[in-house]
Amino acid sequence: MTPSPGSDPVRSPAPATPGGLLARTLAAITPADPEAYAAAEDRQSRLTKPPGSLGLLEQVSVRLAALSGQCPPPMPEPAAVAVFAADHGVYAQGVTVWPQEVTTQMVANFLASGAAVNALAAENGARVVVVDVGVATPAPDWPVAAPDALLRRRVRNGTADFTEGPAMTRQEATRALEAGIEVAEHLIADGHRCLLTGDMGIANTTPSSALIATFTGADPVAVTGHGAGIDDLTHRRKVDVIRKALALHTPDPADPVGVLAAVGGLEHAALAGFVLGAAAHRVPVILDGVIATSAALVAAALSPASVDACIAGHRSVEPGHTTALRHLGLDPLVDLGLRLGEGTGAVLALPLVRSAVRALREMATFESTGVAGG
Amino acid sequence: MTPSPGSDPVRSPAPATPGGLLARTLAAITPADPEAYAAAEDRQSRLTKPPGSLGLLEQVSVRLAALSGQCPPPMPEPAAVAVFAADHGVYAQGVTVWPQEVTTQMVANFLASGAAVNALAAENGARVVVVDVGVATPAPDWPVAAPDALLRRRVRNGTADFTEGPAMTRQEATRALEAGIEVAEHLIADGHRCLLTGDMGIANTTPSSALIATFTGADPVAVTGHGAGIDDLTHRRKVDVIRKALALHTPDPADPVGVLAAVGGLEHAALAGFVLGAAAHRVPVILDGVIATSAALVAAALSPASVDACIAGHRSVEPGHTTALRHLGLDPLVDLGLRLGEGTGAVLALPLVRSAVRALREMATFESTGVAGG
Repeated sequence: MTPSPGSDPVRSPAPATPGGLLARTLAAITPADPEAYAAAEDRQSRLTKPPGSLGLLEQVSVRLAALSGQCPPPMPEPAAVAVFAADHGVYAQGVTVWPQEVTTQMVANFLASGAAVNALAAENGARVVVVDVGVATPAPDWPVAAPDALLRRRVRNGTADFTEGPAMTRQEATRALEAGIEVAEHLIADGHRCLLTGDMGIANTTPSSALIATFTGADPVAVTGHGAGIDDLTHRRKVDVIRKALALHTPDPADPVGVLAAVGGLEHAALAGFVLGAAAHRVPVILDGVIATSAALVAAALSPASVDACIAGHRSVEPGHTTALRHLGLDPLVDLGLRLGEGTGAVLALPLVRSAVRALREMATFESTGVAGG
Repeated sequence: MTPSPGSDPVRSPAPATPGGLLARTLAAITPADPEAYAAAEDRQSRLTKPPGSLGLLEQVSVRLAALSGQCPPPMPEPAAVAVFAADHGVYAQGVTVWPQEVTTQMVANFLASGAAVNALAAENGARVVVVDVGVATPAPDWPVAAPDALLRRRVRNGTADFTEGPAMTRQEATRALEAGIEVAEHLIADGHRCLLTGDMGIANTTPSSALIATFTGADPVAVTGHGAGIDDLTHRRKVDVIRKALALHTPDPADPVGVLAAVGGLEHAALAGFVLGAAAHRVPVILDGVIATSAALVAAALSPASVDACIAGHRSVEPGHTTALRHLGLDPLVDLGLRLGEGTGAVLALPLVRSAVRALREMATFESTGVAGG
């Protein structure tokens, strides 16, 4: 795939190419199974514990039963976290304190297993794959510890500055969406039964906030946070940048691909595709933080039933994250004040998701034991 | 150990027998190491992530470094959860909807691996041992799937009704404390490097609330919840029962053994000893919910430095739990609306604790990589 920075977007909304991967994926997504949902709720009520006493884990187990169409659902393993990396033209507007080359450097760090997501994924039983969907300045000598640790799906060398024009073309947005679907299908074909979202892209909370404002109708100031650590002056600039972009593009939430092209990021598009690909195969996808959840808004706009495949891994400190979770109707599992990204919140939630399913699968029932009180 | 229900307590505060296990354990507990704490904070600041972005996990890693006296600290594994089971004379006051024999039945369920804690411990890599410190009606034929799965440390057949007299004698409270120390030492001698608290005892949130009210000074109504599921009328009765007991005994928080004897439970005493035993050996102990945390208040009253060994596994929906955590200065890791007990909240926190240490141990530093921004 050759990069094509600076191309003009096709602004007219159009359905995904019939027969294309995106269109086929959207057609394959169907709602979760209400019978399996009801069966799982019934089974939960018969397990040897006070009703409801496993809290949110019960909800997770019931939703995964509905997704799989089985009660109890299969164990969500093995698991893989895909870290989608890309750069952002809006970096030029001074929305972050980190140098843009950190995206490239962190990809190298992921491949050398030195980042937080590597340590946490190793501890919690998830494979890590890194997907370059649009890093601006790739290092030619990225080390690859494991074959298949780096998936090359570059759509272009970073987005354009969306305060001056669209971030990318519609075709590029579609290609990035399809790259995400391809990665999901690749991992599922490789036997994985739980997908986790990861991301790396200096400045990527800025397009996240723009997407959240667009799809939820929230004011930018309410959904824009301090990212990986900016001061109040930079925060005001970041809000202004988002306002300027929304005024320039007036993105239409009914045209999700157009929204991505206007104010999205390449990793946001790929993450949305990753969610759609998981949903089409009825494999659960654990969302990380604000970047993934803003992408899940895109996926939900393209296919509302895709939300049935989503588990909210954690609640980040980014204010827009809570807004996006509420819009999707998702309750996060981990709430530890994380603001790291990379997939760390999703990976930390993985044992909780496995635990939720395992309790439903393995616990004794009141009938099967002599325990009174059922 | 023969049960001795109905004995009168020795009310006069007295130090633990010099040379006894409790006294020796208290003498062995020393504060956490400030140098290892500082070294861990420094190391956290040099890892390839925005400072502070791993949230509460950073605090956990730093505290465990201080506990172990090493930076980075050793991995907290293997892990074992000890489920201390006992019954409560205050059951007679109608403070719960569950039949008292459920304590015995659930011990059988634990031993048959059918309970929630079994499924969650299996998933999260913790061994389960059940400790009978005072079940009222033991089943003679408790199945034992694994040798050593049931530790027999019965002090008496349940406590006496503390609305009518002391729950147990001071000697019994001390024996239950020492039973907890013994279990901790047994598990540590067996190679475990992370201990988790579990509990089972119908009506055991009632003594928990009495302990929390005593040690924190909170009004009973503020620290009494709905336990494993009671209605508002029963809740009012439960609060009245606690008020009556506190008025009868006027327990003195400066005499922790006396407080246990007056209004505690046998599993509360054993859990307090378990915390002290872990602290004496500088092994971390993950607290489950309101029962364990009320016991940790007893441990902290006996030895303030024992808190340095404690990790708060989760925040239960019981209001007294939050009061007790605040008193101890502990921030819980998991907050999923759990109200099950058994050790489930501690077991769910275990992968988070391991993850905290693993990140500190394995992540690359800014100096060791080419990542900018450190």
